[in-house]
Amino acid sequence: MKDEHINPWKTLSSEQVYSNPWISVRHEQVINPGGGQGIYGVVSFKNKAIGIIPIDSEGNTYLIGQYRYTVNEYSWEIPMGGGPVEIDILESAKRELKEETGYTAQRWTNIARLHTSNSVTDEEGFVFLAEDLIAGETEFEETEDLKIKKVSFAEAVRMVMDNEITDCISVAGILKADKILRDRKRSTL
Amino acid sequence: MKDEHINPWKTLSSEQVYSNPWISVRHEQVINPGGGQGIYGVVSFKNKAIGIIPIDSEGNTYLIGQYRYTVNEYSWEIPMGGGPVEIDILESAKRELKEETGYTAQRWTNIARLHTSNSVTDEEGFVFLAEDLIAGETEFEETEDLKIKKVSFAEAVRMVMDNEITDCISVAGILKADKILRDRKRSTL
Repeated sequence: MKDEHINPWKTLSSEQVYSNPWISVRHEQVINPGGGQGIYGVVSFKNKAIGIIPIDSEGNTYLIGQYRYTVNEYSWEIPMGGGPVEIDILESAKRELKEETGYTAQRWTNIARLHTSNSVTDEEGFVFLAEDLIAGETEFEETEDLKIKKVSFAEAVRMVMDNEITDCISVAGILKADKILRDRKRSTL
Repeated sequence: MKDEHINPWKTLSSEQVYSNPWISVRHEQVINPGGGQGIYGVVSFKNKAIGIIPIDSEGNTYLIGQYRYTVNEYSWEIPMGGGPVEIDILESAKRELKEETGYTAQRWTNIARLHTSNSVTDEEGFVFLAEDLIAGETEFEETEDLKIKKVSFAEAVRMVMDNEITDCISVAGILKADKILRDRKRSTL
């Protein structure tokens, strides 16, 4: 068996066909692992996706709602933002939580590293659990664009199970957090 | 509060800047929900992502391993494929499971509808739980490109929790399946 860590693909040529402040797209000629020649269109992201699941002392979390232009649907999601690659992901998470909810958290746990769509994009996402919250002033203003709602964490899990939350990082993050919180509870029984 | 179902974005112009057999990329001039003018680069997928979690009578599942060109990493994932939009997603799921494992399943449950990366792409994914499996001939041949391995479903969950599985559809699907299987067990105790 060949070493899983060696990239079996070869890139013969690479041409940037599009770029904006958030993504660039490359069209590449490649040799695939089977030895065949082909093409690959790679969408490269300029930021990491960083999601935060805050849990307050009463077991509530916060969801952000917005109309997603790409999928033409309204979407409730965990607080999330783009973290510039040169900034530490935990720093980006802290900034994002503060901006969207006003909270600072005294306990942070990195619970997920994710690839959102690895057949086409290189987007990498992370999810943090934020606990022991301290309320503060929020810079967040509800507009027609962005809504915020407080729900029990159990209700967030229900929304995931009923496909009312479809954003994949939110789904993966909420269910990972659910398992971590259940396992923690069980170990302290 | 405005109706969540009305799209508050306006598209002023749209230009296709790239296309290959799997994706197209559009550069658009938009008015965002706040009324500001801006640009949006939308990556549109020509297939739906369809993942399958087969569970055999002994509680095992199957994972597919491959080196992902985009993220430059080896990745273990649930069996998955691209379903053409004109084909019923369950039919695509059945074909994919048969191709990759040889199995046909007598019990299919659609457990997830997901948007993989909705800030940039319109990619939609679905995950099916496949049970009551009947073994058959597989068309799958292990190559340097694709590996298959049988693991207990509990081991798949452990791999998710330890970030050994990072593909977001696989993570979301395995944890949703885990919760469904646990809830089912509890309801029959």
